[in-house]
Amino acid sequence: MQQKQRAAWRERLYVIIFEADTRAGQWFDICLLVAILLSVGAVSIETVEGLTQQQQDLLNAIEWGFTILFTIEYVLRLLSVRRPLNYAFSFYGIVDLISVLPTYFTPISGSRSFAVVRSFRLLRVFRIMKLIHLTSESEELARAVWSARSKIIVFLTVVLITVTISGTAMYEIERIASPADTGLPIETQFTSIPQSIYWAIVTMTTVGYGDIVPQTTPGKFVSALLILVGYSLIIVPTGFVSAEFVDLKKAAKTSNQTCPYCMAEGHLRDAEYCRKCGKPLESNESLGAT
Amino acid sequence: MQQKQRAAWRERLYVIIFEADTRAGQWFDICLLVAILLSVGAVSIETVEGLTQQQQDLLNAIEWGFTILFTIEYVLRLLSVRRPLNYAFSFYGIVDLISVLPTYFTPISGSRSFAVVRSFRLLRVFRIMKLIHLTSESEELARAVWSARSKIIVFLTVVLITVTISGTAMYEIERIASPADTGLPIETQFTSIPQSIYWAIVTMTTVGYGDIVPQTTPGKFVSALLILVGYSLIIVPTGFVSAEFVDLKKAAKTSNQTCPYCMAEGHLRDAEYCRKCGKPLESNESLGAT
Amino acid sequence: MQQKQRAAWRERLYVIIFEADTRAGQWFDICLLVAILLSVGAVSIETVEGLTQQQQDLLNAIEWGFTILFTIEYVLRLLSVRRPLNYAFSFYGIVDLISVLPTYFTPISGSRSFAVVRSFRLLRVFRIMKLIHLTSESEELARAVWSARSKIIVFLTVVLITVTISGTAMYEIERIASPADTGLPIETQFTSIPQSIYWAIVTMTTVGYGDIVPQTTPGKFVSALLILVGYSLIIVPTGFVSAEFVDLKKAAKTSNQTCPYCMAEGHLRDAEYCRKCGKPLESNESLGAT
Amino acid sequence: MQQKQRAAWRERLYVIIFEADTRAGQWFDICLLVAILLSVGAVSIETVEGLTQQQQDLLNAIEWGFTILFTIEYVLRLLSVRRPLNYAFSFYGIVDLISVLPTYFTPISGSRSFAVVRSFRLLRVFRIMKLIHLTSESEELARAVWSARSKIIVFLTVVLITVTISGTAMYEIERIASPADTGLPIETQFTSIPQSIYWAIVTMTTVGYGDIVPQTTPGKFVSALLILVGYSLIIVPTGFVSAEFVDLKKAAKTSNQTCPYCMAEGHLRDAEYCRKCGKPLESNESLGAT
Repeated sequence: MQQKQRAAWRERLYVIIFEADTRAGQWFDICLLVAILLSVGAVSIETVEGLTQQQQDLLNAIEWGFTILFTIEYVLRLLSVRRPLNYAFSFYGIVDLISVLPTYFTPISGSRSFAVVRSFRLLRVFRIMKLIHLTSESEELARAVWSARSKIIVFLTVVLITVTISGTAMYEIERIASPADTGLPIETQFTSIPQSIYWAIVTMTTVGYGDIVPQTTPGKFVSALLILVGYSLIIVPTGFVSAEFVDLKKAAKTSNQTCPYCMAEGHLRDAEYCRKCGKPLESNESLGAT
Repeated sequence: MQQKQRAAWRERLYVIIFEADTRAGQWFDICLLVAILLSVGAVSIETVEGLTQQQQDLLNAIEWGFTILFTIEYVLRLLSVRRPLNYAFSFYGIVDLISVLPTYFTPISGSRSFAVVRSFRLLRVFRIMKLIHLTSESEELARAVWSARSKIIVFLTVVLITVTISGTAMYEIERIASPADTGLPIETQFTSIPQSIYWAIVTMTTVGYGDIVPQTTPGKFVSALLILVGYSLIIVPTGFVSAEFVDLKKAAKTSNQTCPYCMAEGHLRDAEYCRKCGKPLESNESLGAT
Repeated sequence: MQQKQRAAWRERLYVIIFEADTRAGQWFDICLLVAILLSVGAVSIETVEGLTQQQQDLLNAIEWGFTILFTIEYVLRLLSVRRPLNYAFSFYGIVDLISVLPTYFTPISGSRSFAVVRSFRLLRVFRIMKLIHLTSESEELARAVWSARSKIIVFLTVVLITVTISGTAMYEIERIASPADTGLPIETQFTSIPQSIYWAIVTMTTVGYGDIVPQTTPGKFVSALLILVGYSLIIVPTGFVSAEFVDLKKAAKTSNQTCPYCMAEGHLRDAEYCRKCGKPLESNESLGAT
Repeated sequence: MQQKQRAAWRERLYVIIFEADTRAGQWFDICLLVAILLSVGAVSIETVEGLTQQQQDLLNAIEWGFTILFTIEYVLRLLSVRRPLNYAFSFYGIVDLISVLPTYFTPISGSRSFAVVRSFRLLRVFRIMKLIHLTSESEELARAVWSARSKIIVFLTVVLITVTISGTAMYEIERIASPADTGLPIETQFTSIPQSIYWAIVTMTTVGYGDIVPQTTPGKFVSALLILVGYSLIIVPTGFVSAEFVDLKKAAKTSNQTCPYCMAEGHLRDAEYCRKCGKPLESNESLGAT
């Protein structure tokens, strides 16, 4: 009997913490979202120089407050699930744990470290997406990217080989060629091949920081070629992801039902009669509704 | 009787000011467009240094001239509409009001302030688009973006979480790692986490100012990774907006014939039988061919 | 009789100069292409500093040589067409004329001027595209861009209004806000509104020179927002041009013939029998061949 | 008899080295991939400054080790193929050869040269793609780019003509116009037309290094125009490559059934009669459903 009561209590906690269908569950998710954003904001602002001691103490207190809250939440999650170990070793279980751990280590290791680890708690925002019914959207996006994954691997391989070869080429060209305008030897910014590959990535993706630039005429020429290749290459993955989305959209529009009389396919989702022979279609939906 | 005459006068004013079907209405819109562009031009040029006193006086006079014109226009709009309050609190009513207000406050607050507020009068250009029959185009663009809004929210969430985590990571990496080439400690440009997040946004979107750049080898490595992720990510929203447009175009392609028996619409172009009632469709094309 | 002979001579010249179907016409176009590229190359290299007097004399001689060649070509074009005035005032007629004029004016006005006007001769390359059968490709590209022109106008209007408003906003923000890190007043790079609008264009299109960058925290924040808006905006025109191309491709694939027996449409271009009723289609091509 | 034995041995070697279907062949490819990446990594790291003599010796030893390995591999490839000359003059045969040659020349010519030639060995990675079944993906990508090649040539021609004309224009504008803000003569960064064309390419493709920037008001204006043109142009090739991919996907969708009477292929999925001979198609789906 008491066992059953505890189960009911655990069931209710589970619905609030893990689901977003009830009003309590929605409020829980909204509060959690706000808490995550505020705590990440506090960690960020803490690193800005020129804060007074008072401001630092406040931010420190906020960080500790949220950490204790997240710890309580983590314990409640462990209590409410049927198999705590399954949760603890799931992706979100690990994210939840490393959201709180770094703060407890700060007294030992110094106040500013682990900022990266703390920022991982932002990954928990994805879990809250179910709140605003964006799960299906995320899944559709993920599916399109996933079904284009082989092409993306091929594409990235082409990009990486291109940047390595052209980076190496630029390293040699800039060392050998004399500078374009002055005729005097200049100090090249292409100091090593890894540096030149970094330049090639920055250039080919059109980021173009300008911290490393070619200074010789042959270097500028090769650079212009690489830029034009990069400019042309970006259109390829865009094209195939577009095609994936067009395909997904079309699949979502036509039903996969077959006319039982003439075997015609490709009917619109809300069609009630076969567009080929005019006989009634027995829609899955109407069957399900009966 | 006089009441009726006033109504007719108001009606005529309304047609000129709010519509673009008559010749007078078209001329009004063209003059308004020119006036808006000239006044915004005057506000902009006023801020250029090295103007003579004479030039400044001229620009000032132009600004006052247009402000008085826009004020008269605002009053006429208020007079010509049936429900002045509805107009006054509509989007364009507020834009019209804040187009003229700042100039009247300049004698009090100094001559150059409120330039932003004044530039809001550019928003009135959208209203004039009906003049050149671009309203349907704008609506189609807006509809495609609107129907992809959930995916855009998911996409921006992914981008923001990625830039926050990688910005925080770079903040730590650049502080810890020793500089790549010299071995000497250098002054990092990643002074705080908000600064690093700003860098991550500038980098991931391929803007790449170059005011903040990684100076250490691990920093450059993480930076290159982030750039490649950003380069791959841009293709995702492009893909789904493309798919939306392809879809809208196809929707414009489905026949606009109506079933003569049940008035159902939205049949595929090659449908031979109504998808709602199963009776044969009399296609416009075959009727035309007979 | 002599009249007729002259006509035949003119006809032959016309075929060589204006068309690319004969062997002579193809050779003429190839020589012209090489001549155009070499002459533009000579004009470009002439401006490089550090050339010896000898090299400059050589480049000058090359330029004069090509100019005389192009002048002869222009005269021959005038002679070979039936209506010389129509040609002289056509687009390519004017381009051909301004390809040669600037060189004749150099002794009067100084050696380096008119370089832009000379570079217009590159536009003649488009005429040579018929040589390598790229005319239909160019037309298809032009048609897709043309059918999306209204949307491009709307899009550019949105971009221009956005950059004006955000440029003006940055001008004010950077003047008012104190610098982020030092607390000392700094010299803003946003010296005037036109300068700020230039920055906004450079930023929003992801060019990001880095010659003008925000130096205050609020400026960086607004800047990051503008970047994300620009990053999202680029996907819109890409999407609708993609949709136009998908549409053009589909139109090119299905013939617009109708089955004379059952009025079915949407047959593949090389279909010989109706895919609905199995009766033979009377293809336009076979009718034309009869 | 001995001849036959040797043939069997050669056959087995061929299957291991050139194919990836057997377990031995897969292991060979994985080892080769790792060896290629390690050797290119060694060549890259060798150029980093600040290495100790010991580290340089190690890297040198690694390079020699891999070169000897690749040489053995090259000889085995020559031995295992039926026609060694065909292999030796094929694309991969040449790549395999120039992967090993530069190292043997280093004692003669100095240790750091030929780094570019060595990096060509990365091209061998493409051969290993068959290992992870990415060959069909690469072929599909290549086919889409290939079928859009004419449009890409037209597009690149437009881009090159645009950058040449606008580069030349900027060269003249920046020389003539007085600087925007100070009124003093400044040193222009547009020192020659080739330099200005380089700037135009960097700008139009949105790379935007910032090493060369316009400093005069007219220069900034022309620059902003060029940027907006570049921003609009990138959408064109993206659009047509997208359309190619959508098309390829659809082609993959057309039914692969063959007419049982005339063996014609390429019917639409909903075709009921053969588009070549007009006889009824027996659809696989309906046969499967019976």
